[in-house]
Amino acid sequence: MKVDGTHYHAIWLDKDNTVVKIIDQHFLPFRFVIKDLRTSDDSYFAIKDMNVRGAPLIGITAAFGMYLATMEAKEEKSFNEYISRTADKLRSARPTAVNLAYAVDLMLDMISSVTGTEKKIEKALDTACKIKDREIDMCENIGIYGVPLIEKISEKKNGGTVNILTHCNAGWLACGDYGTATAPVYLAHDKGIKVHVWVDETRPRNQGARLTAWELLQHGIPHTVIADNTGGLLMQKGMVDIVITGSDRVTETGDVANKIGTYLKALAAYDSQIPFYVAIPSTTIDWDITDGISQIPIEERDQDEIRYVEGLTDGNIKKVLLTPEKSPALNYGFDITPARLVTGIITEKGICQANRESILKMFPERK
Amino acid sequence: MKVDGTHYHAIWLDKDNTVVKIIDQHFLPFRFVIKDLRTSDDSYFAIKDMNVRGAPLIGITAAFGMYLATMEAKEEKSFNEYISRTADKLRSARPTAVNLAYAVDLMLDMISSVTGTEKKIEKALDTACKIKDREIDMCENIGIYGVPLIEKISEKKNGGTVNILTHCNAGWLACGDYGTATAPVYLAHDKGIKVHVWVDETRPRNQGARLTAWELLQHGIPHTVIADNTGGLLMQKGMVDIVITGSDRVTETGDVANKIGTYLKALAAYDSQIPFYVAIPSTTIDWDITDGISQIPIEERDQDEIRYVEGLTDGNIKKVLLTPEKSPALNYGFDITPARLVTGIITEKGICQANRESILKMFPERK
Repeated sequence: MKVDGTHYHAIWLDKDNTVVKIIDQHFLPFRFVIKDLRTSDDSYFAIKDMNVRGAPLIGITAAFGMYLATMEAKEEKSFNEYISRTADKLRSARPTAVNLAYAVDLMLDMISSVTGTEKKIEKALDTACKIKDREIDMCENIGIYGVPLIEKISEKKNGGTVNILTHCNAGWLACGDYGTATAPVYLAHDKGIKVHVWVDETRPRNQGARLTAWELLQHGIPHTVIADNTGGLLMQKGMVDIVITGSDRVTETGDVANKIGTYLKALAAYDSQIPFYVAIPSTTIDWDITDGISQIPIEERDQDEIRYVEGLTDGNIKKVLLTPEKSPALNYGFDITPARLVTGIITEKGICQANRESILKMFPERK
Repeated sequence: MKVDGTHYHAIWLDKDNTVVKIIDQHFLPFRFVIKDLRTSDDSYFAIKDMNVRGAPLIGITAAFGMYLATMEAKEEKSFNEYISRTADKLRSARPTAVNLAYAVDLMLDMISSVTGTEKKIEKALDTACKIKDREIDMCENIGIYGVPLIEKISEKKNGGTVNILTHCNAGWLACGDYGTATAPVYLAHDKGIKVHVWVDETRPRNQGARLTAWELLQHGIPHTVIADNTGGLLMQKGMVDIVITGSDRVTETGDVANKIGTYLKALAAYDSQIPFYVAIPSTTIDWDITDGISQIPIEERDQDEIRYVEGLTDGNIKKVLLTPEKSPALNYGFDITPARLVTGIITEKGICQANRESILKMFPERK
C-alpha cells in the first residue's frame, strides 16, 4: 500500500537481486527507515530482533534469507552443509511462527530439486519471490471476498461511513501487502466506499497505535486510535458496524487464537449483535486440533513489555517505566476467541462460518 | 493503609490544624511526595490539577479547603462573601464529581449554622474531619461486608490463594483509607487470608499500573500488573476467582458506570461464570435514573491522554508519544456495565443484588 504517495511492499529486492530491503518496523511510526539485508545472518537478526514481524512477512524474510544463503554458499567448502546450517538457524529465529518453518522447508526442497550452484541460486530466487507473491495474492483475495461485507453495510447506511474496529496489526506491514484484516478495508476505500477504522492501541506492544495507525494514515484512510478499553462502549453506543481482526491460528472447529484482548472485543460485539469477522489465509487453519482453549499453547512473553512502553520524547525513541519498580507483571501474548462468538472467517477462497462443517466445505481437500 | 511500614491516610491535618497534607498523586509510583496545602487556593489547584483524585478524596480535600477558607476569611472585610466565593471556586474545580459539590454545600451549611468567626472556624474544622471520617468509615464497612466473599472462596480452595481482579484505582488513595474495591482485599489480607490481585493497567491514565499496584506493594499484598487486554484470558484459564471494581455512579436499577474497560471485564466474568462485584458507598447510587446506557453521560477527555503516556526514564517523569503524530484519538472516560452482568453490589450497609428491588430493600428510606 502507499507510503507518502508511493506504493511500497513490506519487503522487496533491489534491482540486481543482491540486497533485500525491508521497512524497519522498530522505528515506526516515528521514522520511516529502510534497512538492507545483505546476508542470511542479516535476515536471521531481522526476524529475531523483530525488525520484521507478522507470520507471513517472517516467512518471506526467511525465504529471502535462504536465497542470500545460496549466494554465500558459493564461497563455502560444502554448499549443502552451509545451506542446511543456515536453514536451522533461520528456523530458530522465532520458533513459534508456522510460516517460518514452512518457508524454510519449501526453500530447502526447491534448492535441492535442481543441480549446480547457479541453478540452485536461480531456483532459490524464484521460490522466494513466489512465496512473497503467494502471500500477497492471498491477502488480495481476502480483500476481494471481504469487501462485500463492508459494501452491504455502506448501502444499509445509504453511503454513510462504515465504522470498522480492528485489534493489533494484521495489516500490510505484517504480510507484504494488503494485510489480512485490513485488506477488505483498503480495497473498500480504494473502491470509493466511505470507511473509518477504530484502531485498538493493542497493549502491551502497541502494534495498533504504532503500525496499524501508521499504515492507515499513509494510505489516507480515516481512523482513530482508542485505548483497548474503549471498544465495548463504542459498540454499546452503536459506533461500530463490524469488527475484523486477523488470527495467528484457527482450529478446524473455528476457535480463533489472536493477539491478547481479541476475545474481549468478540464478547462485546456478540453482546451488541455486531458482526465479528476473522480474516486469514487458509494456511492459518490448524487441521490437527479441535479445541482452542485447551489445545492452543499461549506464549508468555517478557514482563518488561508490560512494565515499560516505548515512545517518542524530545525526538528520541525511549522506553519509560509505567509501574512501581518492584511490582511484577504477567504478559500473555494471545487469547482464544471461541467459535460461538465468531460471525465468519474471511479466507482467500471465500467466507465461511466458524464451524467444522462450513470450514471443510470451503476446503474439501482437507476432509 | 501502610506506606513503607507506616500507616498513612491520603489526606490529613498537621498537628496544629493549620496545614493540610496530601500524598501528591502526580509523582506516584515513582516518588512519594507529601504536599502541603496552606490555603483554600492550594486545595482548589490540588483538585483541579489532580494531585488528588477519586470522588471521596476530592470531597474531603474540598472540605478542608473550606476550613482553610474560614481562617483566611478572618482577614477579609466580609467573612460570608469570602466563604461563598471560595465555595463557588472549589465547586468548579472538577464539575462532574458529585462528592465535591456535596462536601462544599455541607461545609457552607455547617459554617452558617453558628455565629462568630472563631465558632465558624471550629465548626468548619469539625465538619471537614467528620466528612473524612465518614468516608473512611464507609470504606471500612464495605471491607467488612466484602471479606466473607473472599473468605468463602478461600475455604473452597482449602486456604489456597484467592485471585481477585480489579480495574482502575478504587483504592485508599482515592478515598482516604481502605478504598472501596480494595477494602475487602486489605481486610482479608490483614485477617490472614491469602490473596493475590490482578491489577489492570487501566489505560489511558494507568491508574491501575501506577496507583493500585503502588498501594498493594506498600501494604505488602501480592499482586501482578496485567495489560487491560489480559483479564479475559486469565478468566478462561481459571486464574481469576472474583472481580471487584469500584464505580462512579450506579443507577437504582443496578447499572454501573465505571472506568472505561470495566464492561469488557464484566462480559468476560459472565462468560466464565466468575462473580463480578461492585464496591461503593451508597452515596454513589443515583436514585433519579433507571437506565445507565441511555441516561449516564460519558465524559470525553483530552485525546492526548491516549496519544501520550507518562513514565519514568533516566530518573525523570516524562511523557512519550505512542501514535503517529497525525493520527487522532478518542478518549471516553467511562463505560456502562449493565446490571445483568453484575453479581452483587457491596455497600457500607451490606451486599445487595444489582436490581431495584434488592437495592431498595437495603436502603428502604429511598422507597
